Amino acid sequence: MKRYLALADELTASIRSGQLRAGDRLPSVRHASRSRRVSPATVFQAYYLLEARGLVQARHRSGYYVSSLAGARPRMLRKPSAPKPQSIAVDIAERVFEILAATMQRDVVPLGSAFPAPTLFPLRRLAAAMASTVKRLEPRTSVEYLLQGNLRLRHAIAQRYALDGVPLQEDDIVVTNGAMEALNLCLAAVTRPGDAVVIESPTFYAALQALQRNGLRAIEAPTHPQDGIELDALETILREQRPSACWLMTNFQNPLGSSMPDEKKRALVELLTRYDTPLIEDDVYGELYFGTRRPVPAKAFDTAGLVLHCSSFSKCLAPGYRIGWAAAGRYTQAVARLKLSASLTASIPAEAAVAAYLDSGGYDRHLRRLRRQLEAQRDRMLDAIGDYFPDETGATRPQGGYFVWLQCPRGVDAIKIHEQALAARISVAPGPIFSSRGQFKHHLRLNYGHPWTETIDAAVRTIGRMVGRAGADRV
Amino acid sequence: MKRYLALADELTASIRSGQLRAGDRLPSVRHASRSRRVSPATVFQAYYLLEARGLVQARHRSGYYVSSLAGARPRMLRKPSAPKPQSIAVDIAERVFEILAATMQRDVVPLGSAFPAPTLFPLRRLAAAMASTVKRLEPRTSVEYLLQGNLRLRHAIAQRYALDGVPLQEDDIVVTNGAMEALNLCLAAVTRPGDAVVIESPTFYAALQALQRNGLRAIEAPTHPQDGIELDALETILREQRPSACWLMTNFQNPLGSSMPDEKKRALVELLTRYDTPLIEDDVYGELYFGTRRPVPAKAFDTAGLVLHCSSFSKCLAPGYRIGWAAAGRYTQAVARLKLSASLTASIPAEAAVAAYLDSGGYDRHLRRLRRQLEAQRDRMLDAIGDYFPDETGATRPQGGYFVWLQCPRGVDAIKIHEQALAARISVAPGPIFSSRGQFKHHLRLNYGHPWTETIDAAVRTIGRMVGRAGADRV
Repeated sequence: MKRYLALADELTASIRSGQLRAGDRLPSVRHASRSRRVSPATVFQAYYLLEARGLVQARHRSGYYVSSLAGARPRMLRKPSAPKPQSIAVDIAERVFEILAATMQRDVVPLGSAFPAPTLFPLRRLAAAMASTVKRLEPRTSVEYLLQGNLRLRHAIAQRYALDGVPLQEDDIVVTNGAMEALNLCLAAVTRPGDAVVIESPTFYAALQALQRNGLRAIEAPTHPQDGIELDALETILREQRPSACWLMTNFQNPLGSSMPDEKKRALVELLTRYDTPLIEDDVYGELYFGTRRPVPAKAFDTAGLVLHCSSFSKCLAPGYRIGWAAAGRYTQAVARLKLSASLTASIPAEAAVAAYLDSGGYDRHLRRLRRQLEAQRDRMLDAIGDYFPDETGATRPQGGYFVWLQCPRGVDAIKIHEQALAARISVAPGPIFSSRGQFKHHLRLNYGHPWTETIDAAVRTIGRMVGRAGADRV
Repeated sequence: MKRYLALADELTASIRSGQLRAGDRLPSVRHASRSRRVSPATVFQAYYLLEARGLVQARHRSGYYVSSLAGARPRMLRKPSAPKPQSIAVDIAERVFEILAATMQRDVVPLGSAFPAPTLFPLRRLAAAMASTVKRLEPRTSVEYLLQGNLRLRHAIAQRYALDGVPLQEDDIVVTNGAMEALNLCLAAVTRPGDAVVIESPTFYAALQALQRNGLRAIEAPTHPQDGIELDALETILREQRPSACWLMTNFQNPLGSSMPDEKKRALVELLTRYDTPLIEDDVYGELYFGTRRPVPAKAFDTAGLVLHCSSFSKCLAPGYRIGWAAAGRYTQAVARLKLSASLTASIPAEAAVAAYLDSGGYDRHLRRLRRQLEAQRDRMLDAIGDYFPDETGATRPQGGYFVWLQCPRGVDAIKIHEQALAARISVAPGPIFSSRGQFKHHLRLNYGHPWTETIDAAVRTIGRMVGRAGADRV
């Protein structure tokens, strides 16, 4: 690890633990440089980073001070959810769409958005890659790689997996119109109408929509806000209900931000293999980790070809290009064929542009910057929640991605908060859209994928007050 | 009509009728110019066009002569199909995929292809449009028009319809990942698993795949090779079987090339409206007409919002960009929402590129050139079939699109021809993939969407001989 990072992390820990408190002055740069035997530049880099994380503030000619918000973090959620064990026919799509359509309006502060700020992406370099590749596209390309997608792109994707310890080849990959299409195709490949599918509780609403569209029943499994689905409960479901598949987000789950430790992923895959049950793994946030290395996907432990792993570039690089993929194990051919009859291919120039961008280098540098920025924004968001929300509010501490999940005081109606917020031109994602039974009535998902601004800070304060009033009304 | 076109059409008719025969010399340019009172340049233009159509050949210093192939056209198919009236669960996808995958191989002469030659498209101008727009894409665009797609593009599409007499607004249109996705979404919007859907006989195999994927039953309706589905038979089906929808290709149907006259389309929509049955209209070939104006889609007569009209730019402008759309009448919102959960959006830079290309002008000029080229290629193909296939072979005379449908002599096994052809590195599309019951056993669909070359000519000759031998074996 770089020296300034080590120093910044050490100081962060001191602030979080309360060893350094709000208003405390950090050691001067000269002093820190001497005592740690690092250059003054290294100290400066560390302090800048702490400032970016919102932990310290520079005062003119006076040095760096621990920020007044740095200590006041919300209570951390530590209990798994407790959904009903029975399967249920999903019938939630209409309501979800109405809420989402409302939040897509212009000039709404996007705390309820599912997307990070597009300004975080190297859109200019990507555009340059597209501009130069599209002119050199061979006309034949439009037919050549019809079945699985651009070969150069699949090669680049497979190489990245290999570096992360997931042994995938280019022929294991089917390029799709974003991860959403990949997930839908994988679901269609392993289920028939009427089947039951295990999902997390809470779960990403798009999984609920996909289940409903395919006439499937949902079984919500208890899910821990830190390390994901509970394996004991899952085994009971597998034994007693014989579902056709699981659909899980193993890394930085939406909405919880939970991540399964690697060993738990291994145990998950072994368990599913014992029951011969396919796993649809949605790993779109895997690259957005705040730790020191990419958490591997469950796919890394898949020896039986039962993991249908899906991801995309939409959250990391090229939102709107619609380039995703599936690595579907023994279902690869089935998924490729379903893709042909669903939409033929992804957009050929978009595939070529992403492939050219990846070849040109710079993707990892971009990702490092993006991760650091999202981490800093997470800290600002947690600080703001700690500051503006009622004390009883609980929150997750995601180690990646760009969502925080809030448990508001009992009695708060998240749907009503959504409506009030929208009237104030702020969006939030209310808990009930993340459950097949409309549970999580006093939960909210907030997006910290946008650079922190006065507007966002004020919006969080507004929501915090609304929640405070709603909680007080009930008491 | 332009003078040279009128002259060319008159001479074409004389050749087709046998008034001018193979080897006859056309009047000299000077003579024709004087007798018709047109400029010599007009006569030259007409003769060049006849040459492009394959009807005449220039001989050095001697003038133009009627081509030896010009008279020998195959017998024209004039009888509607006679499918079984019962509905059937569709189970054909595997076989179709195997045949299609085989034909996608490199270095295979693409007579079985579903695509026209990509070289026919203005790929360079389109690439320039993409290169310049992608650099100016506003980051927010990726979220802004999530529900229905790029506004400028929808505006341009709606305007084209308005000029053709179809009153559509930009808000009536949902942009999709090609027409294939539009058709799938429309099907999902109006059916539930187990429902029955009326299709043409023969029908485009992708419709069969979509039906199978959605767990739907097919009812094949008698279809005439010139003017499409038989309305009396359709009414009987509507009355007796109460299908959930019809899925038809009203203009230049794939594989027949049949087109419903405008009045028949009006009657079709009235009939379906009486039975409150939605029509999924696949109109991807509507712009590829050889006549003097675009045949209107059935959508033009839709007063009840029951026509879910689908089309794309893939066959006319931008193959591989994957930009299609649905104008789904009263189902517009349902289709937009299904699209969100299927794949979110089409590729944003591809949408913007097509919109910019359309705005820049030149699309109609390109289309005029494309239509003329396809018409000339149709004539070359029909001539070659007349020359190389057994006399008993019947063929359609499509007035648009780029497919001809052949009825080979009874006893010819189209699947075997496909296998033999593939061994000779030629693809054909065998009749049985166009039917839910594997009918049309001695039929073939040939693609004339590629500029005529020695290779294609030789390939048609090879297939003709195979068919001849197969027919002779049975006698």
